[in-house]
Amino acid sequence: MKILVINGVNLDMLGVREPHIYGGKSLDDINKDLAAQAKAYGAEIEFVQSNIEGEIVEFIHSGRLYDGIILNAGAYTHYSIAIRDAISSIETPCVEVHLSNVHKREEFRHTSVISAVCVGVIAGFGEKSYKLALQALLN
Amino acid sequence: MKILVINGVNLDMLGVREPHIYGGKSLDDINKDLAAQAKAYGAEIEFVQSNIEGEIVEFIHSGRLYDGIILNAGAYTHYSIAIRDAISSIETPCVEVHLSNVHKREEFRHTSVISAVCVGVIAGFGEKSYKLALQALLN
Amino acid sequence: MKILVINGVNLDMLGVREPHIYGGKSLDDINKDLAAQAKAYGAEIEFVQSNIEGEIVEFIHSGRLYDGIILNAGAYTHYSIAIRDAISSIETPCVEVHLSNVHKREEFRHTSVISAVCVGVIAGFGEKSYKLALQALLN
Amino acid sequence: MKILVINGVNLDMLGVREPHIYGGKSLDDINKDLAAQAKAYGAEIEFVQSNIEGEIVEFIHSGRLYDGIILNAGAYTHYSIAIRDAISSIETPCVEVHLSNVHKREEFRHTSVISAVCVGVIAGFGEKSYKLALQALLN
Amino acid sequence: MKILVINGVNLDMLGVREPHIYGGKSLDDINKDLAAQAKAYGAEIEFVQSNIEGEIVEFIHSGRLYDGIILNAGAYTHYSIAIRDAISSIETPCVEVHLSNVHKREEFRHTSVISAVCVGVIAGFGEKSYKLALQALLN
Amino acid sequence: MKILVINGVNLDMLGVREPHIYGGKSLDDINKDLAAQAKAYGAEIEFVQSNIEGEIVEFIHSGRLYDGIILNAGAYTHYSIAIRDAISSIETPCVEVHLSNVHKREEFRHTSVISAVCVGVIAGFGEKSYKLALQALLN
Amino acid sequence: MKILVINGVNLDMLGVREPHIYGGKSLDDINKDLAAQAKAYGAEIEFVQSNIEGEIVEFIHSGRLYDGIILNAGAYTHYSIAIRDAISSIETPCVEVHLSNVHKREEFRHTSVISAVCVGVIAGFGEKSYKLALQALLN
Amino acid sequence: MKILVINGVNLDMLGVREPHIYGGKSLDDINKDLAAQAKAYGAEIEFVQSNIEGEIVEFIHSGRLYDGIILNAGAYTHYSIAIRDAISSIETPCVEVHLSNVHKREEFRHTSVISAVCVGVIAGFGEKSYKLALQALLN
Amino acid sequence: MKILVINGVNLDMLGVREPHIYGGKSLDDINKDLAAQAKAYGAEIEFVQSNIEGEIVEFIHSGRLYDGIILNAGAYTHYSIAIRDAISSIETPCVEVHLSNVHKREEFRHTSVISAVCVGVIAGFGEKSYKLALQALLN
Amino acid sequence: MKILVINGVNLDMLGVREPHIYGGKSLDDINKDLAAQAKAYGAEIEFVQSNIEGEIVEFIHSGRLYDGIILNAGAYTHYSIAIRDAISSIETPCVEVHLSNVHKREEFRHTSVISAVCVGVIAGFGEKSYKLALQALLN
Amino acid sequence: MKILVINGVNLDMLGVREPHIYGGKSLDDINKDLAAQAKAYGAEIEFVQSNIEGEIVEFIHSGRLYDGIILNAGAYTHYSIAIRDAISSIETPCVEVHLSNVHKREEFRHTSVISAVCVGVIAGFGEKSYKLALQALLN
Amino acid sequence: MKILVINGVNLDMLGVREPHIYGGKSLDDINKDLAAQAKAYGAEIEFVQSNIEGEIVEFIHSGRLYDGIILNAGAYTHYSIAIRDAISSIETPCVEVHLSNVHKREEFRHTSVISAVCVGVIAGFGEKSYKLALQALLN
Repeated sequence: MKILVINGVNLDMLGVREPHIYGGKSLDDINKDLAAQAKAYGAEIEFVQSNIEGEIVEFIHSGRLYDGIILNAGAYTHYSIAIRDAISSIETPCVEVHLSNVHKREEFRHTSVISAVCVGVIAGFGEKSYKLALQALLN
Repeated sequence: MKILVINGVNLDMLGVREPHIYGGKSLDDINKDLAAQAKAYGAEIEFVQSNIEGEIVEFIHSGRLYDGIILNAGAYTHYSIAIRDAISSIETPCVEVHLSNVHKREEFRHTSVISAVCVGVIAGFGEKSYKLALQALLN
Repeated sequence: MKILVINGVNLDMLGVREPHIYGGKSLDDINKDLAAQAKAYGAEIEFVQSNIEGEIVEFIHSGRLYDGIILNAGAYTHYSIAIRDAISSIETPCVEVHLSNVHKREEFRHTSVISAVCVGVIAGFGEKSYKLALQALLN
Repeated sequence: MKILVINGVNLDMLGVREPHIYGGKSLDDINKDLAAQAKAYGAEIEFVQSNIEGEIVEFIHSGRLYDGIILNAGAYTHYSIAIRDAISSIETPCVEVHLSNVHKREEFRHTSVISAVCVGVIAGFGEKSYKLALQALLN
Repeated sequence: MKILVINGVNLDMLGVREPHIYGGKSLDDINKDLAAQAKAYGAEIEFVQSNIEGEIVEFIHSGRLYDGIILNAGAYTHYSIAIRDAISSIETPCVEVHLSNVHKREEFRHTSVISAVCVGVIAGFGEKSYKLALQALLN
Repeated sequence: MKILVINGVNLDMLGVREPHIYGGKSLDDINKDLAAQAKAYGAEIEFVQSNIEGEIVEFIHSGRLYDGIILNAGAYTHYSIAIRDAISSIETPCVEVHLSNVHKREEFRHTSVISAVCVGVIAGFGEKSYKLALQALLN
Repeated sequence: MKILVINGVNLDMLGVREPHIYGGKSLDDINKDLAAQAKAYGAEIEFVQSNIEGEIVEFIHSGRLYDGIILNAGAYTHYSIAIRDAISSIETPCVEVHLSNVHKREEFRHTSVISAVCVGVIAGFGEKSYKLALQALLN
Repeated sequence: MKILVINGVNLDMLGVREPHIYGGKSLDDINKDLAAQAKAYGAEIEFVQSNIEGEIVEFIHSGRLYDGIILNAGAYTHYSIAIRDAISSIETPCVEVHLSNVHKREEFRHTSVISAVCVGVIAGFGEKSYKLALQALLN
Repeated sequence: MKILVINGVNLDMLGVREPHIYGGKSLDDINKDLAAQAKAYGAEIEFVQSNIEGEIVEFIHSGRLYDGIILNAGAYTHYSIAIRDAISSIETPCVEVHLSNVHKREEFRHTSVISAVCVGVIAGFGEKSYKLALQALLN
Repeated sequence: MKILVINGVNLDMLGVREPHIYGGKSLDDINKDLAAQAKAYGAEIEFVQSNIEGEIVEFIHSGRLYDGIILNAGAYTHYSIAIRDAISSIETPCVEVHLSNVHKREEFRHTSVISAVCVGVIAGFGEKSYKLALQALLN
Repeated sequence: MKILVINGVNLDMLGVREPHIYGGKSLDDINKDLAAQAKAYGAEIEFVQSNIEGEIVEFIHSGRLYDGIILNAGAYTHYSIAIRDAISSIETPCVEVHLSNVHKREEFRHTSVISAVCVGVIAGFGEKSYKLALQALLN
Repeated sequence: MKILVINGVNLDMLGVREPHIYGGKSLDDINKDLAAQAKAYGAEIEFVQSNIEGEIVEFIHSGRLYDGIILNAGAYTHYSIAIRDAISSIETPCVEVHLSNVHKREEFRHTSVISAVCVGVIAGFGEKSYKLALQALLN
């Protein structure tokens, strides 16, 4: 089983950006933990990150060759119909993930334009959100 | 560790109600599987269900004596400020769970009035949503 | 043929509550007339009433064993997605009934969240609304 | 007792137009059945149809000489304040009728600008909607 | 003079729930103080509480036998048209009461669907809100 | 100077329709008075009425040969962009007239889609509204 | 017959302010013409102007001693509920007047909070709007 | 191949009405050019125009006997659900056409209630819009 | 203890203005009663009234030297952010008071822009609203 | 004559992505056909595609050296004010093109932020949309 | 060069009012600093302040005799169309200034009805906002 | 002191794009002037520009090493929550700058999603907006 983890805009700032919201770990640290867990399950896993909406679109296109996608699109979650369409354009199941509970934050973060084309949503569990998504895809 | 699983309105109809959306298993079947998993993790787990908004409020009040709550409020999710206030009134962490991906359905199901007072949200993975919630609470 | 008549919130106050809107007959009087008419048609009919949203949900669940439901949900008509989901969860046809013409009254009474899952709607004919609903189901 | 049945826009297409929504019978067939039923009750009944909003207004004006009006305004239901005003301008009671359950269809069909000036509304019972309206008026 | 005090959803959690908003006194404490004050004025007073919307509706129905109602509906204030209709269905004057100033809190707490059918509203004075309501009814 | 008076939908019911709103005079009576006043000013005046939106559009087209139009479009005022476009398509100045003060009535009567293409608006003075419009055009 | 003409905010700038919208005449010039016309009709007329909302409120209070008020409230038309209440607080009929056709201008000028409490509205005829209002009151 | 071209309200004013928006050619001129082009393609073409909504509905009904419809409904585009329903009631493909780019104009022209039931939309190319529609249908 | 009572716009018309809504007593009468009650409690009390928004702002500024403010801002309640800011700019507690139950009246009276910066709200008890406010401040 | 064809986000997935909506042809196939047609007309044509909003902006900037632009912006159509501004920043006429009839799809696809700055719009004719756009520009 | 600085409602409370938002300096202090800076540039400067909307309108009228206006309208910024019209009625350029960054505060402070008629806006730099405005006008 | 000036989408078209709105100077010209001014103040300044949202995000990330950021995000101002989050993710103060007064333009330009996370906003002074921002940061 092959999983692609796509992190979107501003997630390269993890560990630096507002640690009271996003935690103090860097994205690399999170990815390493996740890779370890994937290995334990006998799954292959790869990681990509971009701040550019169109590159995230292309990462999703490339997801056609995987068995599952874990996507944290960052702020693009709230307005990128382009990313939504990219997910629709492939058949690989995609799980939407958020570190923070977006519903506790500003009004505009309560809307996700991509949820409707993902299989499911996991939000609010910090880095554990990724691990739960991995389990959801593996079972 | 003690967990309380609260199922809300219409969830006693699982297995009967629109199986193409909610799957063919009854709530009892789901609960049994979940109990088995809890046991494997060495956790205590209890199950309650009600169709009455005020009883769900009282189940949540009783959740003060537990270490975590898994809540699938059913349709009350979308308008019960009473349930929201009940969650706020206790300190036990509560995970919001949905069987279906509510964002794929009618417009009025895209709003949750309780997400903002839960620690996190897991939606769209069928009965596995409960299991992921359990793991989220146990770690 | 077996019909279940479900009356919702505040309808136990019929004859007492704002008689210029709802008429001076009690719910019992209305039910007796309706029972007589059903008998004339050779149909079985049963009557339940509750002010509690979740009990109405359960009455609807029990409607699975009937050939038709006549439902006057009272004020719950305007916001109870729980009742809507209960109707969806069974296959028995349900007719939505109102004593008064809700469209002549306050703005918030112009919205019904249950119409879309009923077979049809009859509103504005006083107690005769129930009789018309009975005929609609019997034919 | 004299009843006027007014059918509005596109209802001359009955039997042709989207039969999965409106049924396979022509308007003439429906009218014949309705005339038979009226006769059985000893009532006079007349039928008019027009696709032109202003002609429907005038049919309603002419309804002053009848004891009741059964009106299916078709799509004009949703925006013709002119038809609403015509109903207000006479004292004959008018019953709003729809073949389909408009609440199951597009958002813009959930609003009726004429309900508030009719005595009542009957929707969703196919051609039987007219018969129920006739009974409502005759009693 | 006979007064009925009705407390709604989550108010059994007073003293426990968010004491920085609702104060540290239990509902029993508040009721005792209020009973003492009523006695001083020579008035009879009774207290009921429920978390169940339909039971609150029935408490209000029973309020027909009292000279005044003091109602803190809790979160139901913001959406229970059923409670609104119950108040309309009787003639006893009803005073709407809130412990906290709801206008300082979340947007959805700024709307009350019951204010329009109460004689008046008193909000923001903590437990004293009840005492002011009592005085308003007694004079 | 040549003036065209166009009366729209339901105005043929004047004297019959809701006299507490529109007064007891028929349209003919009003027109005669207005003709007399026009004559006194040495102006030619003509009168047309229709209930059909498209015919009103054509009356307005024919208004190209007049020096001024007085238009009471009735209920079409509130939604007929077709009538608005007809007024834009000619250069003759058009005065919008209403018998009643539309702002005292239902919400939907507070919007006029034609005001923006008329030279001015006169509303609320009963039949005198027409006379004031005539004076406004003649000066 | 005694008439009070009240001009509101920024109308002291007439002749100076955007003459392509409001014309080149000063308020004094307009008042003189209007006084002459009133005299011709044998009516008494007085003129006041203020830029201060509360003073306009007081002018309207003083209008109790007149037979009619002509009011051009300027920009306050669009939001001064205080002026609206002042008009409601007296029984003298009040005519709302505007120099320009407010419906041709910015969206926020399409709403008048005072129309509903005036007898009628005259807008778009420049200074002639006042004269038409005078006639409307005198007849 | 047989094509029906339906022009709606105010389009008989082409060449007269606001030529800076709609061009200086009359509808007859445009139709002649279009007829010539159709002939070149070996297609039959017919032309109808009406200002009356209900007649346009009937033209569309008659379109059942054609292979394609080109429809410029004029202002009815923005609110005529009746025309929308007429298009739905037949199976002939219909192309929505506009002379001007409606999106450059007033807000209310940005909404089309008929686009969703047409095969496609062509707007903004002046009379050429019709020719492009013809080609779209012929291929 | 020193209390400042501020009455806003149109409240000088009390006893004159719509007595079925506001009662037949003048503001002076109400103030005298209130002064008597304050005296009984051993409190100092002063009264000011203005129709001018900016003067009410200044009265509130002067409220810095008092122990409590009772404010009935009249219609300014619904839109004066200036008054809201004035209340925020001082530390004296301010109680918002209304004679009538504003929620029973027009939609625009259901919004208060000042409630959120007052300690509490008392509405609907006629002149007794002031007395209850006084008690609320004194305790 | 030189034409630039710009395809936006996800259009590199044509032939792969939801073929029931977008057809089975790849973008290369479509471009080849279009190139052939351009050649037949004696026009030069060039093709670019990008998934990155900012690169599409730059393609449009480069469109200054062409006689016309055919733009299918994909999902960016619905929210990219950046692309809108890019079109405004040059003088080359731009035709907005869509393969599918966007008005038949989700609500959010009914809004285009770029239509208002394009010369015209062609939508719903599959790959033929491009050919019609080419003809529209060449004539 | 002559500059007029107009400070609006509640700005006389500077130094007193919420110093964490507006700073601890009084308006006089700020004005002195600004006068010094103006002098350094060889410009004349004058200062006025009022809490009364209509007086601010008149200050703006008097601004006709100056070369520039610096306006901090305080809360009136958000709803005073009267002030907006006053600015439109003169030709002197006006710069809108705010001490705090209004966009960080309540939703209703995000709207300015006067920005559209000012040359520019400077917000968020405390008292330095005035100095930047002065420089903007002087260059 | 080190300042980073970030120009966003379409700003590379300055001097070319709609010069009546944005002026005739190129971005290079503006930058040179600004560099000269910075030098005069003894400050270091650097300039970057991109049309790609994600690159602007990365420029902002790199702004961590500067003492201040001047940001003109162009059209992204109105919808890029990604840019908003980037600003939140660093601690360097950021000033939002616009050449034109965005409030005089289309409705959708009145909203900025980034103002709330900037220290302040300067808009409407052409290239001088940058200079004022520089001064604001340097003091």
